Amino acid sequence: MLDLHYWPTPNGWKITIMLEECGLPYRVVPVNIGRGEQFDPAFLAIGPNNRIPALVDHAPADGGEPLSVFESGAILQYLAGKAGRLLPEDPRARMAALSWLNWQMGGLGPMLGQHGHFLLYAREKLPYAIERYGNEARRLYGVMDRRLGQTGAYLAGDAYSIADIACFPWIMTHKAQQLTLDDFPHVRAWFARVRARPAVQRGLAVGKEWRTGASPATDEESRKHLFGTRSTTGGAG
Amino acid sequence: MLDLHYWPTPNGWKITIMLEECGLPYRVVPVNIGRGEQFDPAFLAIGPNNRIPALVDHAPADGGEPLSVFESGAILQYLAGKAGRLLPEDPRARMAALSWLNWQMGGLGPMLGQHGHFLLYAREKLPYAIERYGNEARRLYGVMDRRLGQTGAYLAGDAYSIADIACFPWIMTHKAQQLTLDDFPHVRAWFARVRARPAVQRGLAVGKEWRTGASPATDEESRKHLFGTRSTTGGAG
Repeated sequence: MLDLHYWPTPNGWKITIMLEECGLPYRVVPVNIGRGEQFDPAFLAIGPNNRIPALVDHAPADGGEPLSVFESGAILQYLAGKAGRLLPEDPRARMAALSWLNWQMGGLGPMLGQHGHFLLYAREKLPYAIERYGNEARRLYGVMDRRLGQTGAYLAGDAYSIADIACFPWIMTHKAQQLTLDDFPHVRAWFARVRARPAVQRGLAVGKEWRTGASPATDEESRKHLFGTRSTTGGAG
Repeated sequence: MLDLHYWPTPNGWKITIMLEECGLPYRVVPVNIGRGEQFDPAFLAIGPNNRIPALVDHAPADGGEPLSVFESGAILQYLAGKAGRLLPEDPRARMAALSWLNWQMGGLGPMLGQHGHFLLYAREKLPYAIERYGNEARRLYGVMDRRLGQTGAYLAGDAYSIADIACFPWIMTHKAQQLTLDDFPHVRAWFARVRARPAVQRGLAVGKEWRTGASPATDEESRKHLFGTRSTTGGAG
């Protein structure tokens, strides 16, 4: 059995989508990041960065002790290996998928995260920071659009892969982040194609009821856990 | 032969260090990011995100056309596979290395990058942003310190790996970023241990003569390329 330590956020959804795509049985362990549960000592042992998602495999391939993995990019690679799906073995297709996965981990995710912070959550409205990250968000959308225009289908090439799964939940935030897909027709078509997958819909539905109407960052206690000195850039990695 | 498209920056050094550690023969292709060479159409074909480093393997394992890889995290994985070094095959050690590699790619790198920007380069001094990223930098140093205290040696466990290579050049920026290692004794000991490796010294020396005394972001043309709307968060990925 796989235990997914999870909260419904873009980085959390990457993993529920992947698990649903692979048909792997899993159990969800909620980690309410608005209530600071990512700082519980018990969670720290498997999520040393105090971030969701984290995964514990109670039946790893070597038959040994439970194996834990953290950081969404590493978990996607682990599950792809376990299921033998969505990360091609062919070295060219594999490296394309890993390049774009790392692009999401190092660029699209963190930069959209900063844009969301300064646009939506920061106590001070700082035009310099909003412009900086808005420009970078649009630049990244442009990079993705050019790539999808070349492949005509998915980030790694013809085949859907963990690179698409990593990017999808972050592109999903575009409306909240006041970004439009109108200038990025290939991203828009890809977004609709990925969203239509039943496994993606099932992944997004996990823990939907835990999300309140408001953003998790709008009440005082949540702000403390998400933007305090213990965790200044959010609760999801 | 391997062509490394490179400029001497933290993300560039990751790859020269890795190549030196593995003893793989390579040729350096300078991409002067202060002069905007990362926007040349010829570079775009192998570095679609307009960032260094990017790698082209002219003798890939399948014997086919040259194979290109971008994003430093993906390049480290590719070279580890090619050389059979610094990314363990054992699934536990492998996932520890990949978890910490992704932690660097998604957290330590981008957040220190933002801290450096607001502290050193931004035209406006924004105390909110400097505090936000300074707090996050110290939090991340703390996460790393706790981990190194547990393993007593390296991020993935007993053995030096691509996770250490990914983190080292970013920890090297601590003085410029006005951060101290005094509160992080395990990081300090690890930093000295890694820095003492001859391959690390050789990697850091590549292109040293191209770095002028001043930061690459202190003249007007460099600022335009590094912080303009084409490339708002820097020139290295």
